[in-house]
Amino acid sequence: MTLRYHTPLTPDQQRAFGLSEPQTLAIADRVRFAELDVLKHVNNKAYMTWFETLRVEYFRLFGTPCYDADAPRPRIVIGQGTVHYIKEMLMGEDYVTTCRVTAFRNTSCTMEQQLWAGDLRATFKCVIVMLYPDGSGRYPLPDALRQQFIAVDGASAS
Amino acid sequence: MTLRYHTPLTPDQQRAFGLSEPQTLAIADRVRFAELDVLKHVNNKAYMTWFETLRVEYFRLFGTPCYDADAPRPRIVIGQGTVHYIKEMLMGEDYVTTCRVTAFRNTSCTMEQQLWAGDLRATFKCVIVMLYPDGSGRYPLPDALRQQFIAVDGASAS
Amino acid sequence: MTLRYHTPLTPDQQRAFGLSEPQTLAIADRVRFAELDVLKHVNNKAYMTWFETLRVEYFRLFGTPCYDADAPRPRIVIGQGTVHYIKEMLMGEDYVTTCRVTAFRNTSCTMEQQLWAGDLRATFKCVIVMLYPDGSGRYPLPDALRQQFIAVDGASAS
Amino acid sequence: MTLRYHTPLTPDQQRAFGLSEPQTLAIADRVRFAELDVLKHVNNKAYMTWFETLRVEYFRLFGTPCYDADAPRPRIVIGQGTVHYIKEMLMGEDYVTTCRVTAFRNTSCTMEQQLWAGDLRATFKCVIVMLYPDGSGRYPLPDALRQQFIAVDGASAS
Repeated sequence: MTLRYHTPLTPDQQRAFGLSEPQTLAIADRVRFAELDVLKHVNNKAYMTWFETLRVEYFRLFGTPCYDADAPRPRIVIGQGTVHYIKEMLMGEDYVTTCRVTAFRNTSCTMEQQLWAGDLRATFKCVIVMLYPDGSGRYPLPDALRQQFIAVDGASAS
Repeated sequence: MTLRYHTPLTPDQQRAFGLSEPQTLAIADRVRFAELDVLKHVNNKAYMTWFETLRVEYFRLFGTPCYDADAPRPRIVIGQGTVHYIKEMLMGEDYVTTCRVTAFRNTSCTMEQQLWAGDLRATFKCVIVMLYPDGSGRYPLPDALRQQFIAVDGASAS
Repeated sequence: MTLRYHTPLTPDQQRAFGLSEPQTLAIADRVRFAELDVLKHVNNKAYMTWFETLRVEYFRLFGTPCYDADAPRPRIVIGQGTVHYIKEMLMGEDYVTTCRVTAFRNTSCTMEQQLWAGDLRATFKCVIVMLYPDGSGRYPLPDALRQQFIAVDGASAS
Repeated sequence: MTLRYHTPLTPDQQRAFGLSEPQTLAIADRVRFAELDVLKHVNNKAYMTWFETLRVEYFRLFGTPCYDADAPRPRIVIGQGTVHYIKEMLMGEDYVTTCRVTAFRNTSCTMEQQLWAGDLRATFKCVIVMLYPDGSGRYPLPDALRQQFIAVDGASAS
């Protein structure tokens, strides 16, 4: 299969790369030399960069259009996260990272992320919190974004 | 207080820096410009580097002496981890990272880590797995290390 | 234009992306959030990672086949390098990094690298030194690699 | 010798650590695991972070006080730089990075940096450019900073 990097994969392309279930956003990239450590495998911190890259793209594609043009943009921060390392990654491997919002509250949401390279290599589940850009407190999710979490991600309000 | 960086802090020094309870290993360092992101605070991934730096030092100080001189050194990898971000870190702040093993099994242990800068900024709890260096499977903890987990860290076998 | 990332670009594809002259190896990638700093542009250190990624690929594609199967693989290190920053890079931009060997001696070569994103953003020129993997000294370039530097890169012996 | 990390070293402390000639600013730190690569030495990019950390501290200590309280702070960027790698760095080594401005023009200066760990391990020489924070062009050095470059660093106008 020829992988299309840096481009949202269709559900069929996701399945063709081995994903068990298509996710809201799935994008391919490749392991860099700089991500290896002395054990000659990808260091566990590199996964955090890969997941971050996809979260930023998720909110650029799906979040930004939900804010009024003159509304302040939220600071998006992680409150907590749990990573599972399932199988190591090696130099030059192609991989796909995914994300999907599974639940949300008034000012936060739960995101589930996966890392695939043929088989499942890691997962990351985190709670994302929205803050006003001036730091004056938590910023409610706009209704359009809540609707999208439900309609596109299949998330549930909690 | 004058902080001694890169040097294990005594229990009294740990308390003086604000830690609620002395930990097995606690070492001070300072935020670097390179660790900030566009939000002008320390990016959440930098904490992973800080915690890693201390885990490596922990096993250098406490783990390595527990292996026979001619025994292979284990590959030490993280199986899973959970991070909580409590309060952001800013440019130039001094901080102390800590670690302590709280539980262990035959080939793995649970490590709890904290990040302090006056107050508690983040915690990381992870399961660390020992592997044979040739990748031939899990590597049992030597008895001396198990005894040390109990005597020094106050860990419990599980 | 649809860019093919992580894949060597043909001379025509290089020209279509704006390169003034096709290079031996040119590969496209995209700016990541993690590469930005507090000035909201790509930090100057990220360019070093991009250039490194391409050098590693260059030697994987062109260098490795020039060594006998049972010959030791060299340690490839940089002796010196000069970077010019011409125009800043911003979030999400597509870019192409290039490399070409312009000169070589017995155990080293000079590599010229460019960074393009429509226009030229940076250049890096470095001297690369080959060492025996056991650190016992400098490792002569195999003749096949010298011939390739001449035939493919247009390099000159010096 | 007990090193004081993250603290400007006096000329005597610099000489005691092996520096051939005291520099305007010299600060000690220690190699981290995260800075090693698959060759089990410090990757060449890590030096760029160390030099950056010290440049930022230099301008915080010596540059900021030279600007009027209500003057805009410049964007400080690198125009070009040349690094020489002299001897590799290994896990856990203590090191001292230095900087000194050797020359300046109307809106830029030349900085020379060194990396020491007993002996000289690397040097970096770069041209630093001052820009208005709004990107509207080059920002002249305040006279107080020019005087300081001359008096403290021994720099010459060019």
